[in-house]
Amino acid sequence: MTDCLVDGVPGSMVPADDRGLLYGDGLFETIAFHHARAPLWDRHWARLSADARRLGLSMPPEDLARSECLQLAGSERCVIRLTLTRGSGGIAYFPDPQAPARRIVQRRAWPERLVVQRSEGMKLVTSTVRLARDSTLAGIKHLNRLEQVQAARDCAARGADEALLYDAAERLVEAIACNVILVIGSRKLTPRLDGSGVAGVGLRWLSEQPEVELEIIDIAPAQVLQAEEIMVINSVTGIRPVTALDDHRFAIGATCRAWQRLWSERLES
Amino acid sequence: MTDCLVDGVPGSMVPADDRGLLYGDGLFETIAFHHARAPLWDRHWARLSADARRLGLSMPPEDLARSECLQLAGSERCVIRLTLTRGSGGIAYFPDPQAPARRIVQRRAWPERLVVQRSEGMKLVTSTVRLARDSTLAGIKHLNRLEQVQAARDCAARGADEALLYDAAERLVEAIACNVILVIGSRKLTPRLDGSGVAGVGLRWLSEQPEVELEIIDIAPAQVLQAEEIMVINSVTGIRPVTALDDHRFAIGATCRAWQRLWSERLES
Repeated sequence: MTDCLVDGVPGSMVPADDRGLLYGDGLFETIAFHHARAPLWDRHWARLSADARRLGLSMPPEDLARSECLQLAGSERCVIRLTLTRGSGGIAYFPDPQAPARRIVQRRAWPERLVVQRSEGMKLVTSTVRLARDSTLAGIKHLNRLEQVQAARDCAARGADEALLYDAAERLVEAIACNVILVIGSRKLTPRLDGSGVAGVGLRWLSEQPEVELEIIDIAPAQVLQAEEIMVINSVTGIRPVTALDDHRFAIGATCRAWQRLWSERLES
Repeated sequence: MTDCLVDGVPGSMVPADDRGLLYGDGLFETIAFHHARAPLWDRHWARLSADARRLGLSMPPEDLARSECLQLAGSERCVIRLTLTRGSGGIAYFPDPQAPARRIVQRRAWPERLVVQRSEGMKLVTSTVRLARDSTLAGIKHLNRLEQVQAARDCAARGADEALLYDAAERLVEAIACNVILVIGSRKLTPRLDGSGVAGVGLRWLSEQPEVELEIIDIAPAQVLQAEEIMVINSVTGIRPVTALDDHRFAIGATCRAWQRLWSERLES
């Protein structure tokens, strides 16, 4: 069975002049599929559409993209990456406004380690990588992810599962592949993403649940250490508690467990 | 004749799981070749090596990379793009430290418009795109170039040849594909590149010529308008004078003409 479609055609190769490769000129979504369904499809599609507007990328028809994702997903639990690049053409940085976008759909296995991480928690470090700030691309899930790769290298070298990323002004932004939520007393806090970071689909879904009230604010390192609970979230992994950050230990609290139940009942049952 | 080599093999396709495509995880050099020679090869190789160290990318042997570039270049005047990606493998952002890098060598025609632009100058606009600042990737010629693509779209829509880019703190950084030099009285100024931008090989070469003294400083928009001369430089295009910036006109001055002569005598004769 193929695990890749390029513009709908089975195959694992992409033209070397693809602008996604040359310049990171494109977007992607990483989508959880269960039983031939993607519970968060609508939110993924909405984000991709909004980001494509910001980049001036043409969108494929939604039915076409969904059917290609489903074709690869089959009925098993898996992760589908849908990449949309600006295709080929143009002169260096200047794109050809007429060139059609290119769709790349890739399948990967469901990460089995999630069961343990959701239950027992994760060990994080504070990344030595500081994210650039005041980015006009903030919030967009684009292909320019070298900061995350650098943070992942640092994280792996230090034996951690994930890392908290601050921007150059020491504002908390996100984890490498997740958004972050802190519980301090009755407050549930998540960082602003107006200058760096990705506006996550999982976080968006959570914030729209009637039981959930999130404050979006600037968060400094000292506040992180005051947290009673820390959790990380993305649309594939769901909500995972943080039990260690550098030398500090955190309990897995009632908020995390309650929100994990919402996630599992509403998205994975 | 092929115009692309992937790990030395003629062909125009790259695996869809290449990390350059997935995450912009790689570097590139754009190198001018004349008569089967690249006069700035040593400086390109030095920058690529230094950038690869910062990203933890393994470098191919220099002789191998040069011979692949030469194989495509032939004896005609042309532009060779040498891309080095982190290859395939790893788990999402986390690379496989053992995976070999992938070399992609591509050829494109020499840009004929350069003759006119060097002689008659270029029309620039001030970009509406502000570059993110305090980037830990500043200076590196990496594959994360979406800001430049956004600036190119804006530039093309406004009918200009190039655009000046400021960072979010209104410090001048560079043009879309060039570094920038201002002449104000006896001073020759070029922006700091410590938080954004690419440390250009052409600029580096120029700054090392005994006749040339460049001051590297913070430059605000008001200073740009005080300039008697503005020029843009990169290793392929050489030095081109700016004759218009938005509604302002600039003369082509003696400094530009003198440095253009150095360029042509020492690199293109």
